[in-house]
Amino acid sequence: MINKLEFAKTIVKEAGSYLREHLHDQLAITVKTNPTDLVTQMDQEVQATLVRKILEAYPEDQIFAEEDELRAPIHFGKVWVIDPIDGTNNFVTQKEDFAVMVAYFEEGLGQFGLIYDVMRDHLFFGGKDFGVFCNDKELKPFQNRPLGDLLVASNVGMLKSNAWGMADLGAECLGIRVYGSAGISFTKILSGGILGYFSYIWPWDYAAAAIMGECLGYSVLTLEGKEPNYETLEPIMMVPTCKLDEIQPFLTKGKDA
Amino acid sequence: MINKLEFAKTIVKEAGSYLREHLHDQLAITVKTNPTDLVTQMDQEVQATLVRKILEAYPEDQIFAEEDELRAPIHFGKVWVIDPIDGTNNFVTQKEDFAVMVAYFEEGLGQFGLIYDVMRDHLFFGGKDFGVFCNDKELKPFQNRPLGDLLVASNVGMLKSNAWGMADLGAECLGIRVYGSAGISFTKILSGGILGYFSYIWPWDYAAAAIMGECLGYSVLTLEGKEPNYETLEPIMMVPTCKLDEIQPFLTKGKDA
Repeated sequence: MINKLEFAKTIVKEAGSYLREHLHDQLAITVKTNPTDLVTQMDQEVQATLVRKILEAYPEDQIFAEEDELRAPIHFGKVWVIDPIDGTNNFVTQKEDFAVMVAYFEEGLGQFGLIYDVMRDHLFFGGKDFGVFCNDKELKPFQNRPLGDLLVASNVGMLKSNAWGMADLGAECLGIRVYGSAGISFTKILSGGILGYFSYIWPWDYAAAAIMGECLGYSVLTLEGKEPNYETLEPIMMVPTCKLDEIQPFLTKGKDA
Repeated sequence: MINKLEFAKTIVKEAGSYLREHLHDQLAITVKTNPTDLVTQMDQEVQATLVRKILEAYPEDQIFAEEDELRAPIHFGKVWVIDPIDGTNNFVTQKEDFAVMVAYFEEGLGQFGLIYDVMRDHLFFGGKDFGVFCNDKELKPFQNRPLGDLLVASNVGMLKSNAWGMADLGAECLGIRVYGSAGISFTKILSGGILGYFSYIWPWDYAAAAIMGECLGYSVLTLEGKEPNYETLEPIMMVPTCKLDEIQPFLTKGKDA
């Protein structure tokens, strides 16, 4: 498995290098489900390259990826989960705060995950047999502190409508941040900089973070507190497991409100 | 004046180096006006060092700074405006997304401003006689695009309550971001990555950005469209001057609502 993780690190870093080299290329931007849901040729090229390299090296493996409707069921066999560019709107406008994410599962069990913050050149990687690292530095488990000492990250929609009590939870914390990228938000959690992240996201958005987070004392769950289905868009959180009892009442009350 | 700007670059970079060296020191955190308004001994040490160096080099000059109630009137004489750590809550929790900011005025006219994104090592500096740079790279003026192609940055309070129509304006744009630092938000505007920033802020928060922004086609105004008073906390925006006519109706309608 260590060879497979090393292979994954190599192809993810290569994807990031490609994005940095082509950062100022003219982008062909296509609108997907709504005017703020964008995809570019770079998302498609990066995904196609990752898929090609994986299937050349491991022809029997399967792919579950954001673009092109690649949807192998994650619960069976050897499956790679790919988000070629997480934070596409940041990539398009800011040329920073976007990530390449890859996760690898065997029979539904997460083996390793990788989140590459391309512009900071921070590669987060790990899994239960490896520990979790940011580049060369091993990351530490969550150290418990009061909610009032910690920031949370979410999305603007949930804040505006106080969906799932998100504005109320934020008011109990030190502050709320909105980065426009699940991957970037997750790296800040894994680094110990923020408490948790709450949003409506897909399996390719949370798979890598879930595998790494579990090693550091975090849980990835639906906002109802259930296991994610690893199939569809769901309301998802990653939070310290030891904070669940403090956080869940805000979500439950907000949901019922 | 170029010598004074070079002096300012030196002391701001030294402040950033000091913060990086002492990033993991134990912090003495004090609550100011409310539980999320924090100050640390590092804010105070960095400000004291900046003030000492300025007054050693320029004994006749005056200081307007965030900590310690240093409040020389900006409209008269030679005045340095200092924010030792903008984004203190990010500094405390994340150890990134904070900035050192300095601006210099003569008889109320901004001569140069500096925003140092300490952890990215990006020094933004400039003024009307110098152009505006990020490190060695000269920055370009705002290139007009539709609102729907651009992100905006604000704070969670204004979004939750739709104060000044901020949630409505955000819905017209590509998305909203919340970084928890005026300085970091301004650097993203100066780099061309986001359209504008809207928040309740003090002169030390906006002075440097106003001087640099003016050189690149941006205006810093109150949300009523007036000149800031450079004295007190006000609702402030930095936006491209050519976009004011499109943006102001959202603010006016939101204010009256």
